[in-house]
Amino acid sequence: VQRFLVTKLGEDWIFLVLLGVSMALVSWTMDYTSAKSLQLYKWIHWELRGNVLLQYLAWVSYPMVLIMFASSFCHLVAPQAIGSGIPELKTILRGVVLKEYLTLKAFIAKVIGLTAGLGSGMPVGKEGPFVHIASICAAVLSKCMMFFSGVNQSPYCYTDILTVGCAVGVGCCFGTPLGGVLFSIEVTSTYFAVRNYWRGYFAATFSAFIFRVLSVFNKDAVTITALFRTKFRMDFPFDLQELPAFAIIGISCGFLGAFFVWLNRQVVLFMRKPNAMTRFLTRHRLIFPGVVTLVIATLTFPPGFGQFMAGELMPRECINSLFDNFTWTKIWGSPLPPGLGRSSAWLHPDVSVFVILLLFFVMKFWMSAVSTTMPIPSGAFMPVFILGASFGRLVGEIMATLFPHGILFDGILYRIIPGGYAVIGAAALTGAVTHTVSTAVICFELTGQISHILPMMVAVILANMVAQGLQPSLYDSIIQIKKLPYLPELGFGHIRCAERSCNRDTPEVHKYSMILLGSIDRSELHALCDWWLSAERRIFRQEQCLQEQNQYAKDSWESFAFVDEDDEESGDKVCQTERVNVHKESKTLLESLSNQSLLVVHTYLQMLSQVGNLANYSVVFLQLVSYWLVQIKEWEEAEMDKPMEIDQIRIDPSPFQLVERTSLHKTHTLFSLLGLSHAYVTSIGKLVGVVALKEVRKCHLLIFTFFYRSLFLFYSFSILFCLNLTI
Amino acid sequence: VQRFLVTKLGEDWIFLVLLGVSMALVSWTMDYTSAKSLQLYKWIHWELRGNVLLQYLAWVSYPMVLIMFASSFCHLVAPQAIGSGIPELKTILRGVVLKEYLTLKAFIAKVIGLTAGLGSGMPVGKEGPFVHIASICAAVLSKCMMFFSGVNQSPYCYTDILTVGCAVGVGCCFGTPLGGVLFSIEVTSTYFAVRNYWRGYFAATFSAFIFRVLSVFNKDAVTITALFRTKFRMDFPFDLQELPAFAIIGISCGFLGAFFVWLNRQVVLFMRKPNAMTRFLTRHRLIFPGVVTLVIATLTFPPGFGQFMAGELMPRECINSLFDNFTWTKIWGSPLPPGLGRSSAWLHPDVSVFVILLLFFVMKFWMSAVSTTMPIPSGAFMPVFILGASFGRLVGEIMATLFPHGILFDGILYRIIPGGYAVIGAAALTGAVTHTVSTAVICFELTGQISHILPMMVAVILANMVAQGLQPSLYDSIIQIKKLPYLPELGFGHIRCAERSCNRDTPEVHKYSMILLGSIDRSELHALCDWWLSAERRIFRQEQCLQEQNQYAKDSWESFAFVDEDDEESGDKVCQTERVNVHKESKTLLESLSNQSLLVVHTYLQMLSQVGNLANYSVVFLQLVSYWLVQIKEWEEAEMDKPMEIDQIRIDPSPFQLVERTSLHKTHTLFSLLGLSHAYVTSIGKLVGVVALKEVRKCHLLIFTFFYRSLFLFYSFSILFCLNLTI
Repeated sequence: VQRFLVTKLGEDWIFLVLLGVSMALVSWTMDYTSAKSLQLYKWIHWELRGNVLLQYLAWVSYPMVLIMFASSFCHLVAPQAIGSGIPELKTILRGVVLKEYLTLKAFIAKVIGLTAGLGSGMPVGKEGPFVHIASICAAVLSKCMMFFSGVNQSPYCYTDILTVGCAVGVGCCFGTPLGGVLFSIEVTSTYFAVRNYWRGYFAATFSAFIFRVLSVFNKDAVTITALFRTKFRMDFPFDLQELPAFAIIGISCGFLGAFFVWLNRQVVLFMRKPNAMTRFLTRHRLIFPGVVTLVIATLTFPPGFGQFMAGELMPRECINSLFDNFTWTKIWGSPLPPGLGRSSAWLHPDVSVFVILLLFFVMKFWMSAVSTTMPIPSGAFMPVFILGASFGRLVGEIMATLFPHGILFDGILYRIIPGGYAVIGAAALTGAVTHTVSTAVICFELTGQISHILPMMVAVILANMVAQGLQPSLYDSIIQIKKLPYLPELGFGHIRCAERSCNRDTPEVHKYSMILLGSIDRSELHALCDWWLSAERRIFRQEQCLQEQNQYAKDSWESFAFVDEDDEESGDKVCQTERVNVHKESKTLLESLSNQSLLVVHTYLQMLSQVGNLANYSVVFLQLVSYWLVQIKEWEEAEMDKPMEIDQIRIDPSPFQLVERTSLHKTHTLFSLLGLSHAYVTSIGKLVGVVALKEVRKCHLLIFTFFYRSLFLFYSFSILFCLNLTI
Repeated sequence: VQRFLVTKLGEDWIFLVLLGVSMALVSWTMDYTSAKSLQLYKWIHWELRGNVLLQYLAWVSYPMVLIMFASSFCHLVAPQAIGSGIPELKTILRGVVLKEYLTLKAFIAKVIGLTAGLGSGMPVGKEGPFVHIASICAAVLSKCMMFFSGVNQSPYCYTDILTVGCAVGVGCCFGTPLGGVLFSIEVTSTYFAVRNYWRGYFAATFSAFIFRVLSVFNKDAVTITALFRTKFRMDFPFDLQELPAFAIIGISCGFLGAFFVWLNRQVVLFMRKPNAMTRFLTRHRLIFPGVVTLVIATLTFPPGFGQFMAGELMPRECINSLFDNFTWTKIWGSPLPPGLGRSSAWLHPDVSVFVILLLFFVMKFWMSAVSTTMPIPSGAFMPVFILGASFGRLVGEIMATLFPHGILFDGILYRIIPGGYAVIGAAALTGAVTHTVSTAVICFELTGQISHILPMMVAVILANMVAQGLQPSLYDSIIQIKKLPYLPELGFGHIRCAERSCNRDTPEVHKYSMILLGSIDRSELHALCDWWLSAERRIFRQEQCLQEQNQYAKDSWESFAFVDEDDEESGDKVCQTERVNVHKESKTLLESLSNQSLLVVHTYLQMLSQVGNLANYSVVFLQLVSYWLVQIKEWEEAEMDKPMEIDQIRIDPSPFQLVERTSLHKTHTLFSLLGLSHAYVTSIGKLVGVVALKEVRKCHLLIFTFFYRSLFLFYSFSILFCLNLTI
């Protein structure tokens, strides 16, 4: 046993390390490829700078080709790879089996589609799809390891594996292990085993470590640092008087986040409405992504409208420049200081910084909402992050204009840092859209600075309060649209009776109102039926009969003993065998039949074994077959009437039972905690019904509406409270 | 319903806010008081600087008085306040009821005792007791709110409340909301509801915010910053070549942490061994803390041995100086640079920095291990944190000596920052002792710098691996010593049968092998019995009988209907009423009895009500009483034979059931997830046994030993692996 344990435990660690390393490699390769693609894109744009028309064509066609390639590739290889993947994982982790979502095909489609999407410069995110990719990787890897070690794992472990996969996915996406673990917990789980926190932490740290070390080896960075490192001053990061501005960012981001979710849903619902246009688009799948890309690329064309919205900046450049340490309103109009870098894109000689920031925010807002609905692997985290950063920067620049000399404290003037506002805005908006608070942690890890921790957490909490009162999270919204079988969280104080949600009227239950002995998997039953009527068993049975006939006198009591055993367990609900004494009849019938068929079979088998070559005996063969088929038919019908040998089925002796008067609260907790898809309701040991996930969800819907309304009432109070506190 | 929901929800938020504010106030007041106390201590020491003997007496007696006051105060008010409190909370959150641990008395004892302990300058921590304080505060607050709103809460909510309390406790202890939530999750829970994460985050942020704002108002800080803020350079925090040193810190801290837990346990076990000395110490409770304080204070006396181990530094000054930005080996011997502050205590003119650091580490190591066993409220987190910081600093200074010119990279020489090593050491050692990884997060929040994130996480993980392989965590160790009923975590791959752990032999179960209908709380049953035999019911019953006799003809069928209803439910296991037809007999008996007693009672009552003054009628009274007592005895015996009215008992109609062949893994998961203390085992609806927490623990112990052994084997592999990777 000890030896077995060591092997087993070793495997878990090896699994985590392998998962971390492989995902770090995937993440880095993807980043590298898409960065090279974007470099090529900008190089083409630069080389054609003399001719605006050619420049425009290149600027538009490059992303169109990539996006359409990604779309068609996903459609052909694995349509499951389309979209974010987090809603589906949330459902899978809830215990529901979604087919084809965790296959190698989906992995390939997602990786290649995502790389193409990221390389196109469109506002599509990496985080969501990466969670899906890592989960597939974890599932496939664990299957491989199970194959090599020959150990079967229980369904509990399957959840454990996927949870770790999610954590690694977020963690190595941007090199943020801690935020990754927390974000994946918040987004995917309702109840969480602390041992998975540890495992996720381990794997994500390993993964992020390798991811960052790879970029050091590639000379992208001098040492292991944050991805979007900021250099704000640390001795006095902000003053208490700035807190109202942070609170305003939080509350506004809450509203904006809810609006983003609403807008995204409207676009999806519009595309799903059955009318002539959508039918046309469904038939020609490439037109929708093509048109969207065309419009977005046209608007961001740098010599055109793009100059008013920093259109030349690729997503990552946007973040880096929005987080920079300059105050744009101050340097606007004067000669550009050294070290400004890509941030110069925001400073148009004729147009104010505010207008550019506002235009950028408004245009990117709908662009992001629309582009995340394209049929390619795309997340919404990064686009929303950029939106939030630009909004925060806007507020920061306004603050810097309102207090041009900074804030006086203890005789020292501290100027305002708009970059800090941008970081807070980014965390708040992503928090509002995803309904998580760990975006703050991701922000610290991304920027490498934690000095704004308290205002950022306050802003994220405020944004969450507002957004949760108005809309479901983006992932829940997609779950609702796709009608995935997910059980939402229960509010407090809702105690109902499980009996009410139990479907008592199902006829199959009423007809057999018996003691619940166990449950059998449907596939198991199918396999058994197949085997029961299979050729192997038939032949085996017939040979057995022959022997039995010879030794009939001796064996008679043995077979009867067997029948008795069988009777005890045949009361099982799923088998549904009638207990009338069809038993002896079928037995004698079988014997009489087998006497005849046996001779034929024996002849047939002897022929085959003696000759080993069928070609010469085809006539004999055909004659036999016709007789054969009739025989099989009769035999099968006879066999179906017989009670099955239940010993050979894998019955779950302890299916999940609820007693009749269990409260809805308890039922909900059990379903959520244990990831059940159904439970049997018993009363004094007798089976009275089955509660499926569907029923619990139905019961829950009624409560859900109340919950949101009341939350909304509260949030208006909380805003007032916070404003009072900070002013 | 909606109105009810709004009130209810509002309460939850108000609860969180109130909890946050009150704990922030408690934390700040405690910090303020203990800081003032330490200031007074140092002031006395400074004022007496001419006379070494007086100085010594003051240096020794001041902490002795405070510690002995704390010890006797706790002993008198609430002995439950002694120690850390985290092990007890872990057990309470597991679902076990520990009496007197969550009372206002314990709160007061803990707050005052802890303030005195912190004010004495001894190496005692604030974090553990503060978790306990916050939990008491949460429990008391929720009781108050339940009282005002008149709503009864289910046991699920009780866990929710305590979980949030723990998070707030760690969060506002040092103003580390994020690390607080994570640390409390890791330390106290096995399975965790994500909604509590959100609530803990909210309350802890609020609390930390108020805590830090208070110190800004008090002019301790200019703005909201970290408690132990560091100012390491950020552009190149460390080089990849330094990683082996970080890994060595992690691994060594793992060993040291395990050794600390072992040492602490040995001290406790020695004190518990029954011999003459311990008996003497138990009788005179103040001698042990007094002697320990005397020895520690004598050794740290600054003009004496204390000068070789920076004895004059109070715990917080230690941390601040260990995290500073100087390289002590470089400035040692030369004139002290400006801005060095308290760090000058580490620079003895004659003794090398290494010797002082080593002496400090060794002396403080056993001092911390011993002082946390004193009978006062004291945690081990902060002392261990200081130990880790000094160890890290030692390694850092060694590295700075090995590479005196720093590390060459890209033509620039980057010098080594020993302070960064100290931060990593602190995180690693606390992580090893508590078996958590979130100490890294606490470190970021405490220092306000996140640039060392990856090496710190690697070090913490390595330390955890080593320590988990060698010893249980400090809290688990205390749980084992105190024999608290806690269910440890299950390793992977252990599938046994619950049947084995179910105590089938309990006679009460076998005797009544019936259908399980429900379970009744023992206190509920007691209350019912009391009421059943109470004077009120007796009088009520007798009056009823009188009326019944008058209307006997009419009521006869009604009472029979009642009897039938009763029969249906009296099969309940706990009631254990026999179903022989004792029913009618007792009824007639009662009637015959009550006819007599009724007259007496009536006389007695009429007398009392008419007179209102007993003095004049004492003779009558005495006569009556003797007769009365016999009557009552007879009546009580008669009543005990009657079946009870089960309708009036609160039966739980859905006690937790397991089926006979449930695997141990499933049983363990259910017990952990749902916090059960016992579950009924049924077979085909019939009750066959009860599994209590104790049995599951017993079964688990066998597996536990295997688990640790295998972990140990693995960790040696992992060290080799990590070293290979980093070198």
